[in-house]
Amino acid sequence: MPLNELKSLLIDGDPGTPESRIVRVMSERGTLSAAQIATATGLARSTVSTALAGLRRSGVVIEAAGGDTGKGVGRPATALALNPEAGTCVGIHLGLDGFRLVVADVSHSVIFEKTEELGRDYTPARAATAVKRAIDAAYAENSLRRSGLIGVGISVSGPVSPDGVVQRASIVPLWAGTDIRQTFGPVLQRPIFADNESNCAAIAEMMWGAATGCEDFVLFKIDVGVGGAIVHRGQVMTGVAGSAGEFGHMTIDPDGELCRCGNRGCLELYASFVRPLALAERLHGRRMTMDEVIALALEGDVGSRRLIEDTGAIAGRGLGMIGAIINPPLIVIGGRMALAGDLILEPLIAAYDKHTLIKRRDVDEAKRTRITIGRFTQNDALLGAVGLVLRHHGRLG
Amino acid sequence: MPLNELKSLLIDGDPGTPESRIVRVMSERGTLSAAQIATATGLARSTVSTALAGLRRSGVVIEAAGGDTGKGVGRPATALALNPEAGTCVGIHLGLDGFRLVVADVSHSVIFEKTEELGRDYTPARAATAVKRAIDAAYAENSLRRSGLIGVGISVSGPVSPDGVVQRASIVPLWAGTDIRQTFGPVLQRPIFADNESNCAAIAEMMWGAATGCEDFVLFKIDVGVGGAIVHRGQVMTGVAGSAGEFGHMTIDPDGELCRCGNRGCLELYASFVRPLALAERLHGRRMTMDEVIALALEGDVGSRRLIEDTGAIAGRGLGMIGAIINPPLIVIGGRMALAGDLILEPLIAAYDKHTLIKRRDVDEAKRTRITIGRFTQNDALLGAVGLVLRHHGRLG
Repeated sequence: MPLNELKSLLIDGDPGTPESRIVRVMSERGTLSAAQIATATGLARSTVSTALAGLRRSGVVIEAAGGDTGKGVGRPATALALNPEAGTCVGIHLGLDGFRLVVADVSHSVIFEKTEELGRDYTPARAATAVKRAIDAAYAENSLRRSGLIGVGISVSGPVSPDGVVQRASIVPLWAGTDIRQTFGPVLQRPIFADNESNCAAIAEMMWGAATGCEDFVLFKIDVGVGGAIVHRGQVMTGVAGSAGEFGHMTIDPDGELCRCGNRGCLELYASFVRPLALAERLHGRRMTMDEVIALALEGDVGSRRLIEDTGAIAGRGLGMIGAIINPPLIVIGGRMALAGDLILEPLIAAYDKHTLIKRRDVDEAKRTRITIGRFTQNDALLGAVGLVLRHHGRLG
Repeated sequence: MPLNELKSLLIDGDPGTPESRIVRVMSERGTLSAAQIATATGLARSTVSTALAGLRRSGVVIEAAGGDTGKGVGRPATALALNPEAGTCVGIHLGLDGFRLVVADVSHSVIFEKTEELGRDYTPARAATAVKRAIDAAYAENSLRRSGLIGVGISVSGPVSPDGVVQRASIVPLWAGTDIRQTFGPVLQRPIFADNESNCAAIAEMMWGAATGCEDFVLFKIDVGVGGAIVHRGQVMTGVAGSAGEFGHMTIDPDGELCRCGNRGCLELYASFVRPLALAERLHGRRMTMDEVIALALEGDVGSRRLIEDTGAIAGRGLGMIGAIINPPLIVIGGRMALAGDLILEPLIAAYDKHTLIKRRDVDEAKRTRITIGRFTQNDALLGAVGLVLRHHGRLG
């Protein structure tokens, strides 16, 4: 029964045993060699060997095809992974008018993906029932053992406190005050993990995207809102009420316009989609999407370019403050604005360097903050919801 | 030979053995019970018992008098500590015109403290020689074994990169670019640990002060400069070039006055001592210190009070941004301005709540950010230098 053993090692059992530490590292990182496991767990090579032998005998760990197990001369190291048949997890992203669902196995392969519309202002109870039905259908259609589901990760469009309560300032206003565990736990009957969508996006970039192998970075998201996440030593910072990484609500002008959060002059008012899109619509005399504005800019439309450049400049100024106080080795730009590529990146980097404390010219390459476009702009929050379970982050109860 | 065993467990040996994990936790936290050690290390109780028996036999661990080993009914748990005779460490705080030195043992007792003047613009080489002489004298005077010195922690008035190079924007300009390990290592012939003075201050507050038992907090320092530190899961964030926590250099007015860092409108220009002191001097027509202004305010002088209140309000606005993006459970106010107590704290808290994202009224007590005055305002950076060694933070080489 590899499943029960895996679930115990990953979710319920004593996390201090060598077997549990090995399985947790493999769940976080996917395919690894025995040497990489020893480094990541801090366990002695001999302890790792003994424990791996047992885990392979019971079928929890298998040899994987390929995988990046480090470079070296001589015989290549055996690539190991968790047995995909030993367990699956579900990621849910709760959006404005519906949810997306993904099923993945513990070897990090996506098995199934689905979008389900619920209409504006759907209630938490309705979402829980619909999610349950969608999971049941997905498992039946794909002939997956329902008992193999080790946990459900839920990505929410708003701050989520460490005990799983959605805070105000959520994009889905009806959800403010919702207790995620109470809402989904009894319906799903599985361990629930939850966090803010930007924190999930950071986990996706760390596990599979632009921050792979990077334990310290900032994700800065430019979309209909401005948000982000701070990752320190491989852990996403959540904050005492769940608002860590809410970069959009730094006050850059205390006498500025009112923000939906109740403060004035928040960075989000200047650096999100909303203003450039309104200006573009006025200019073109019709309703537009940001994707259209970005496409026009990439085709060379000077007005669209300027709107994106100005957004990059103000976002870079805000990021400069974040750089001064976090000073991360890497900043990943996420959100749909990232689709503009260098058009947003160049003015953003110039403004960052102008306003931050440690400037490029002052330090050598190794001490510079690298700023890059994220790998995922459309499905980062969804993939990250799976990542919550695989990395055991944001466990409720 | 308990000394050699301790040094190996604490500094040089495999950090993964139970003995090493136990000794490192005891070094970080001081007096603990066996149960507290098991919780802190994540080791099984039986493993802790076996390892502790060996450590007590060899004299590395001893029974300590008193100590907070948790409350409960029945027989009190035995309080254990590292043997103070098993090792000592030195903390150095490099200031504007000299250094301070403290010697402490591994059970966290301060044995000796000294201030040494070197005059303005002393060179790194001169400091290294003077520090060596002062350490030798301190060990001779107190009949301490020189071979018992397990490491020297150095607290620097400027950003220090993880590889030990003092960055620009240092209060001691001559030190910019100095490699701390190259400067002190060959002279002292002992493991060297180094970090920025605000990061050291945070370590002191975490180990012995207002943040005791708190693994997540922000230190915000108001003094001749504005600085601070971010602590996440018990680890001080340093940043890729060493500038994490440089709160004074967040740009709050991009068109404001020029700052010594080369940017405009930094928070430090508005929230440090410098402006209120200049105004107080003009008002009173004489040279004054901030301590005098604070004393006048505490006696009821309305002008001095207003200067402190205004500083609190602008500092609170800056902190509001930090709160929005870090959302820590605790903010500790440090620096000499903290001596003003409630006079600075009240306007600061009011401004924080006005400008930050998650406001007091929106969340219950457990999710609020608590803001408090630090315990150490005079010697935090010095005690924290000892803390660098005891917590194995900022090791160079």
